[in-house]
Amino acid sequence: MSEATSAVIPGSTALFTDKYELTMLEAALADGSGDRPCVFEVFARRLPSGRRYGVVAGTGRLIDALATFTFGESELASVSRFLAPGTVEWLRNFRFSGDIDGYREGDFYFPGSPILSVSGTFAECVLLETLVLSIFNHDSAVASAAARMVSVADGRTLIEMGSRRTHEEAAVAATRAAYLAGFDSTSNLEAARRFGIPAAGTAAHAFTLLHTTSAGRDEASAFRSQVETLGVDTTLLVDTYDITAGVNTAIEVAGPGLGAVRIDSGDLGVLARQVRRQLDGLGANRTKIVMSGDLDEYGIAGLRAEPVDAYGVGTSVVTGSGAPTAGMVYKLVEVAGIPVEKRSAAKESRGGAKKAVRYARRSGTLVEEVVYPADLDRVPDGDGSVVHDLMVPLVRDGDPVGGLPTLEESRRFLSRGMVSLPWEGMTLSAGDPAIPTRFVRAR
Amino acid sequence: MSEATSAVIPGSTALFTDKYELTMLEAALADGSGDRPCVFEVFARRLPSGRRYGVVAGTGRLIDALATFTFGESELASVSRFLAPGTVEWLRNFRFSGDIDGYREGDFYFPGSPILSVSGTFAECVLLETLVLSIFNHDSAVASAAARMVSVADGRTLIEMGSRRTHEEAAVAATRAAYLAGFDSTSNLEAARRFGIPAAGTAAHAFTLLHTTSAGRDEASAFRSQVETLGVDTTLLVDTYDITAGVNTAIEVAGPGLGAVRIDSGDLGVLARQVRRQLDGLGANRTKIVMSGDLDEYGIAGLRAEPVDAYGVGTSVVTGSGAPTAGMVYKLVEVAGIPVEKRSAAKESRGGAKKAVRYARRSGTLVEEVVYPADLDRVPDGDGSVVHDLMVPLVRDGDPVGGLPTLEESRRFLSRGMVSLPWEGMTLSAGDPAIPTRFVRAR
Repeated sequence: MSEATSAVIPGSTALFTDKYELTMLEAALADGSGDRPCVFEVFARRLPSGRRYGVVAGTGRLIDALATFTFGESELASVSRFLAPGTVEWLRNFRFSGDIDGYREGDFYFPGSPILSVSGTFAECVLLETLVLSIFNHDSAVASAAARMVSVADGRTLIEMGSRRTHEEAAVAATRAAYLAGFDSTSNLEAARRFGIPAAGTAAHAFTLLHTTSAGRDEASAFRSQVETLGVDTTLLVDTYDITAGVNTAIEVAGPGLGAVRIDSGDLGVLARQVRRQLDGLGANRTKIVMSGDLDEYGIAGLRAEPVDAYGVGTSVVTGSGAPTAGMVYKLVEVAGIPVEKRSAAKESRGGAKKAVRYARRSGTLVEEVVYPADLDRVPDGDGSVVHDLMVPLVRDGDPVGGLPTLEESRRFLSRGMVSLPWEGMTLSAGDPAIPTRFVRAR
Repeated sequence: MSEATSAVIPGSTALFTDKYELTMLEAALADGSGDRPCVFEVFARRLPSGRRYGVVAGTGRLIDALATFTFGESELASVSRFLAPGTVEWLRNFRFSGDIDGYREGDFYFPGSPILSVSGTFAECVLLETLVLSIFNHDSAVASAAARMVSVADGRTLIEMGSRRTHEEAAVAATRAAYLAGFDSTSNLEAARRFGIPAAGTAAHAFTLLHTTSAGRDEASAFRSQVETLGVDTTLLVDTYDITAGVNTAIEVAGPGLGAVRIDSGDLGVLARQVRRQLDGLGANRTKIVMSGDLDEYGIAGLRAEPVDAYGVGTSVVTGSGAPTAGMVYKLVEVAGIPVEKRSAAKESRGGAKKAVRYARRSGTLVEEVVYPADLDRVPDGDGSVVHDLMVPLVRDGDPVGGLPTLEESRRFLSRGMVSLPWEGMTLSAGDPAIPTRFVRAR
């Protein structure tokens, strides 16, 4: 009973996979190459146009998804339509037993950063490609956009309210990524249940319109009902009809102790000042102003000088603010110790398993990232006096390592990390990555 | 056992919901307005910049999701943290019992088209808002972009392979929407299982790289292995190293009966001609050419004159080709028979429940869409001799009506519909909607 009505618990994540991973598996098992030890790496060839940094997100979700990446009867029945019986038997016993290392969730990444390194046999590593990329491309796109919004909001409250603008399950993951990046709360109840993220929200225009009678509109009744049920600390939405009248009515009904008013349309900058003056004039000095309505990082920046206490952000955060996917790829870089790489126009990858460090000044400001061959006997010198290791163990022999950070810990990690970016890297304007990356080639 | 390992079956969809739907519910139940009969409508205020038409998608998924939109113990426990016991009890017994009418899945929509009309009590209708919009905003964004690709592909095969570029569950819904719009197959195995969509795909560059030995690269071994396991009808990926050498090797290994070659990088137009000549010269006249690599509708259009047999499309289709969300809203338009609408700057909605028809010439070409008050006693006259009703019953008393179209039927409906657009509406160039929409106001 409780199972039938419980959350969307992924039974098996194994079919979130492109067909060709399984046909490659079949051919590799047949010719014996499936057992060759391999290293695959996840990286982005570039950042979205003009962006200064990306934020790694999805690691925690990948660890969870890996636990159910197994083939049950239903999955086996489905793939047996195009696979040979021997391959199906192999899948029946499949469980990823390799190692995964990667950047910490909530860390920055730049073009070519080896965000994740997956090692094991070809057979077991190739199967993970699609799921790994789905998770990282989605979550990192959202977190990267959200971090810019958090940065420019400069300590003011950010509420994620974009669930309705994206797929219902993607919305839950987007909320997680936005929270990781520093958003304060979400409208999404499933994200609140699944990840413990604080939920927020009070009323829409529909609630005010609902109180229309044959005698006409009745904003006061709507506000009175909301305050009676949700308390005087609630947020009243004041722009269904006339905003000035709406604010007056709100304070008449709730008194000067009203929690907040929300404005969802119009020239938000002008309205913020006007409504602040009006509230102060009514003695509601502590009533906050929440702004929403197609805000993105630029809209938030435009309101920096205005008396806004909180921003509600929807479409722009869940769609990565113009970059809905992070452009990460999952590439085979090493086979049986031999570096491999594709060699056709434009899409070059760099062969060989890699590690990465970042150099910083003593002040903490980052200077450069250095990516180097994993078998180098020492960390290359860099331009900076403090060196940070970027890759940490995540999975050993198929099991998550102990002590992986919680979502809250990763959120704090990013928050601390933000102050280490050089100031040019924090600007919203388009430009080069915040720090350069140097690639040390194999000897 | 089979349950633990089966597909991601949503237990309850009820928490894919914004918190404010439930706080509004609580206030409306407390003041008695929760029982007022209401009509909510879904519409898009505008199409994405320059687009000529949108494609309605998500209806079938909504019908499925509605069946599990109920609150079990886990959901109740979660919402009881902020709701009063009376509201929680109300939710325990909740089941949507209203009516839903809407445009057919696979039909076009234009700015202001009343795509969905949900009627029932305020309490039951308001709860559906977030889920309805998540489904329609995502699925319609993908289908609208996909339809342009199908249109410009002009009968050539389109393979959806974008799963890795979007959230893993969104990928399954995106595949469904792309197939609805006329794509031929998908890489996504979960979509194949869940919706019966044909799956496609053979090998990635990793498979070729895997066959590297200490003696160096060995493309021939990789091709041989693939042909032995998957048959001569397979598609060999020929651009891992040198394309001309790759094509020669492919035909040497597979013979002139090889199914296809795939090219994933480079100047695709030049390569298509060059590889076609090469294949023909090798006697492989029937070996097809599959092109992939960051294709969108414009890239496909650019290859129209080239000898390409199939396109693999990834990022652009699953992200709506620049418009990852359809911008649809869910607005209260009528309360107890009284038309209602928000009256603040820019975001005006049109009050009152509506219906819609489309007028066409006898030839079938659409001329205009007319949206009119639902209580009008007859369909308004229009510019055209044939009239099509656009809204059909979908749900009655909470249950799906009988005979709702299958995904295949909706796919054929759209395919037939495409020939009814005026030719200006079919161009990729930016411009006005393909047909104008006229809004007949209430008397």
